[in-house]
Amino acid sequence: MQIHVIPSVIEARSDDFVYKTVIVIDVLRATSTIVTALAHGASGIVPVETVQQAKQQQEPDDWLGGERFCKKIAGFHLGNSPLEFQGPDVAGRRIILTTTNGTRAIQKSLRAESVLAGSLLNVEAAARRAAELRREIAIVCSGTQDEFCLEDGLCAGALVEELVRKTGAEQLEVNDFGLAMRQAYLSCHDDLPTALLASASGRKLCKLGNRDDVLYCAQLNRHPIVPQLHGTVMTATTGSHGSSISVLSS
Amino acid sequence: MQIHVIPSVIEARSDDFVYKTVIVIDVLRATSTIVTALAHGASGIVPVETVQQAKQQQEPDDWLGGERFCKKIAGFHLGNSPLEFQGPDVAGRRIILTTTNGTRAIQKSLRAESVLAGSLLNVEAAARRAAELRREIAIVCSGTQDEFCLEDGLCAGALVEELVRKTGAEQLEVNDFGLAMRQAYLSCHDDLPTALLASASGRKLCKLGNRDDVLYCAQLNRHPIVPQLHGTVMTATTGSHGSSISVLSS
Repeated sequence: MQIHVIPSVIEARSDDFVYKTVIVIDVLRATSTIVTALAHGASGIVPVETVQQAKQQQEPDDWLGGERFCKKIAGFHLGNSPLEFQGPDVAGRRIILTTTNGTRAIQKSLRAESVLAGSLLNVEAAARRAAELRREIAIVCSGTQDEFCLEDGLCAGALVEELVRKTGAEQLEVNDFGLAMRQAYLSCHDDLPTALLASASGRKLCKLGNRDDVLYCAQLNRHPIVPQLHGTVMTATTGSHGSSISVLSS
Repeated sequence: MQIHVIPSVIEARSDDFVYKTVIVIDVLRATSTIVTALAHGASGIVPVETVQQAKQQQEPDDWLGGERFCKKIAGFHLGNSPLEFQGPDVAGRRIILTTTNGTRAIQKSLRAESVLAGSLLNVEAAARRAAELRREIAIVCSGTQDEFCLEDGLCAGALVEELVRKTGAEQLEVNDFGLAMRQAYLSCHDDLPTALLASASGRKLCKLGNRDDVLYCAQLNRHPIVPQLHGTVMTATTGSHGSSISVLSS
């Protein structure tokens, strides 16, 4: 099985994803937020690129969530902090989400056979689901403003490590960038909060008063679910062995 | 002091290097070869981009060295294996060198205030020299065919680690890619040969019968010298504290 880790969304080419499973990563914070919302019973997340698209797709009971420059968009119900997506009002609700990097990376992956959302919160479940799908895997680090960012790289490394554990190293062909990220993850997996706080996005979020978001997103395998795209909506899949049935978390 | 690690030559922008010290890395094999040649007394290495330029710049006693697709160029005295650059004929000789990635990265760095060549063979000396120059540092991983390659990333990580040791972490501002490479290096610095043999370039060189090159280039700090560009020629600098005098190794 081939695994190709891509450093940032600007290096992702849609055509390369045909017949593949793509795992999109935006640890701070889009994919961590999607995982959290679905783990707390949201019926689905619709990732869109622009504020206008979000408003166009909104149906009566939907909520709008998202950020620009790390801040909540005016008139939206929610920003992009995963901590906002844990309340009782999230359960059963569909949320339209637009963020700077993560939702853009998901949009760029639409030609893939399967699109999953990965974060540190769901590494094990995302790796298990990707292995079940038995296709080549592309792991797309969203990055920040078209540049690589540390937290997405470490999450990609964690996914590679988990796939190696599940599948065996001899079964996998990992590109050099994936090998480097795996080594980087192994070097700091016992203290991910410190690593994330040292990253550019982590420092920026701390300055904006969102240190708790960084610490929350640094938790490994807190939620055993995998957001998977079906049409335009991401819903929760359990990622359990032997099952590829998509189930709504509720 | 700012340190910016760049994943591959295609992401290097010449304009960004003005007033900076650039360390160019091409572990397999251009910069390892340049370090080796100068450590064995070559009077200078002239890095050029094309075979034609190499021939044009050749003076009577010069030798031509270089590769295309990992193989020696027809009519050249030497290929790009560092093991070829250790013989007695190298001492005192100027060598014109053209390679696929490394010399291209050096050419792209010409607007920098100082251009150094880094490899695993001379991490300590290169970091010391770069610290002495007291400018912002850009570390350019040459990569392979415009893609990141593991061995250059690990060497970049080793340089960051060495600069942290010399300067103190609180004095340095390292970009996220540099932080990731530092972690990757720390994870495998006690077995660099295995890491290099697992890289795409390492595997390719082994297939071509150049396993000894990979093992040679995986040695940490074998040569306490730094190639530095003066005009069009790289010559050996000792990189010793308190001295910025360029000395020819002979």
